[in-house]
Amino acid sequence: MLLRIDHVGIACHSLEAAVERYQSVFGLTVVSRETNEQQGVREAMLALPDGSSYVQLLEPLGPDTPVGRFLARRGEGLHHVGYAVADVAAALDAIGGRGARLVDRRPRHGSMGASIAFLHPADLGGVLTELVQPRDVRET
Amino acid sequence: MLLRIDHVGIACHSLEAAVERYQSVFGLTVVSRETNEQQGVREAMLALPDGSSYVQLLEPLGPDTPVGRFLARRGEGLHHVGYAVADVAAALDAIGGRGARLVDRRPRHGSMGASIAFLHPADLGGVLTELVQPRDVRET
Repeated sequence: MLLRIDHVGIACHSLEAAVERYQSVFGLTVVSRETNEQQGVREAMLALPDGSSYVQLLEPLGPDTPVGRFLARRGEGLHHVGYAVADVAAALDAIGGRGARLVDRRPRHGSMGASIAFLHPADLGGVLTELVQPRDVRET
Repeated sequence: MLLRIDHVGIACHSLEAAVERYQSVFGLTVVSRETNEQQGVREAMLALPDGSSYVQLLEPLGPDTPVGRFLARRGEGLHHVGYAVADVAAALDAIGGRGARLVDRRPRHGSMGASIAFLHPADLGGVLTELVQPRDVRET
């Protein structure tokens, strides 16, 4: 069902400062910048050289957003992990059928044209978990 | 320098409960179990189908260990991220030269025969970051 680790999502106070740091320390390259009003974030995706995994840096659009509340409670750090799947709707059905709680019952729009859904951390060792069907997979 | 995301490390109270959950929800397979006295953890590595990324589940050997203190402070959840590198000693030299703080100045033994080193979270958006030179890379 899960194909690989697609990305780690990192909550930060300043997107620009975090981008600068990840570029200068690791030589990573920004391949996408987006603002997602629904999720309440500005973000940058930095590509790893394997071409299929990313570091996602997330700055909240305000304090009353999921990432804003995360920062207030825990400070900067790992916010979630995303796994690539071939079919996010099918994966949601299968996972829901196994008794794991879902945040999203249906896929929604994610970064870089992906179709995504979040799973609740309570059943997954406290880890907010995202399923990611990348755009090129969805279009085939 | 970084090649790909090698693993996410997840701190949990009960390794067996977490393994059972990740197996049943996602169909992942345990490929390695180890106790690392130096790091104060019992762990299981569950392989993703790409053959090069893993979910690492970590149970502390006691409360006065890094993962034990993490659990007491924050509860279960994402503890660190590991990136694969071709040469961990060379990567440490390069990263230290760029002003990022290191936890380990020299590589040490990690999971599944890897050579690893940790970078300090303070310069990386609050993310404890591990460099992983997998065994098969080191031997070539």
